[in-house]
Amino acid sequence: MTGLFITLEGGDGSGKSTQSALLATWLEENGQTVVLSREPGGTELGLELRDIILHRRGYIDPRAEALLYAADRAHNIATKVRPALERGDVVLQDRYIDSSVAYQGAGRVLDPTEVRDVSFWATEGLLPDLTILLDLDERVSQERLKDRTKYDRLEEEKQEFHARVRAGYLELAAAEPERFLVLQATDSVETLAAVIRERVAELLAGASTEQPQ
Amino acid sequence: MTGLFITLEGGDGSGKSTQSALLATWLEENGQTVVLSREPGGTELGLELRDIILHRRGYIDPRAEALLYAADRAHNIATKVRPALERGDVVLQDRYIDSSVAYQGAGRVLDPTEVRDVSFWATEGLLPDLTILLDLDERVSQERLKDRTKYDRLEEEKQEFHARVRAGYLELAAAEPERFLVLQATDSVETLAAVIRERVAELLAGASTEQPQ
Repeated sequence: MTGLFITLEGGDGSGKSTQSALLATWLEENGQTVVLSREPGGTELGLELRDIILHRRGYIDPRAEALLYAADRAHNIATKVRPALERGDVVLQDRYIDSSVAYQGAGRVLDPTEVRDVSFWATEGLLPDLTILLDLDERVSQERLKDRTKYDRLEEEKQEFHARVRAGYLELAAAEPERFLVLQATDSVETLAAVIRERVAELLAGASTEQPQ
Repeated sequence: MTGLFITLEGGDGSGKSTQSALLATWLEENGQTVVLSREPGGTELGLELRDIILHRRGYIDPRAEALLYAADRAHNIATKVRPALERGDVVLQDRYIDSSVAYQGAGRVLDPTEVRDVSFWATEGLLPDLTILLDLDERVSQERLKDRTKYDRLEEEKQEFHARVRAGYLELAAAEPERFLVLQATDSVETLAAVIRERVAELLAGASTEQPQ
């Protein structure tokens, strides 16, 4: 595969969408073809699953929920992300395996290693070339979200849960420092965008000078 | 858990529903509380997933499909089957893990062992006390199904596929002869019901004489 797979991670309100849009514009200005993706809900099937996962009333068993995320992921990677990477495009994706591990594993009742293994099976082990983690203190995150009109099921969870998610993310980043770019989400939008552009430019330069296998 | 978990397996048209209904009546006449279940679609959430799996137009990635079955299964086992078994009820379920392995594994492109492992994770390893396999030559099965008015996506698959499913089922039964009761689905309804009753009566007698752990 010749493309670049970049994922954005962090709590809701950390600025993933803003940075994704800025990066996409910059990439396109530099001649790259960009595919925007998100999980859950990156495909038509995924939208149906996203609706069940985020907005369905009533209890969902935690393993069932993790498997629905994995089903969404399997379909998204197989039908949207891999074809794009094979064409040589840059895929910018809002949330991926690290979200599942941080939210379901660290945040809930399931074993994070098992949750990761299910996702690896779903995606045949596809890892991002770069994961941008917009780290944000959960108290700041909750303040930011107060301004939004619509809360979904996950956003309604308690602040303590968000603190555990944040800790889970930071653990994942510490374990794979080469894949992760950890940024302070409270930095200015332009500062963050500049650091991200610099790192992605390095990756693009590296990709173009790599010898074919 | 003090109840009894009995699953019925076999191709469509093999008589699972008929035998399940006869067995339920007999069990209730003998003082048992019976819970009828099926996969996919044994719960409210499961019905939404069943609709996606069986009736959705358009391609579904095979891993996504297997994970949707597993999500349905996780929710059904956690919210319906385990509580019933803990109350001491008899659960009669149309299709379970063996269906996934036979249809997804032997029939499609996925590794049957991996498909089984995903289901084991979904259900925390719950195996039936008894699995009744109604074995039917796929040519007879197709003849029987011609009389039905509505075909679903799986029923439309080719005969060759059903032959591979049948072979997959028989392999599973050969590997676990104690769990499986393999019957010829072309035997008369009453003959089959009598053999099933005999085996279930033995299980109930065994369960009642077992020492508490």
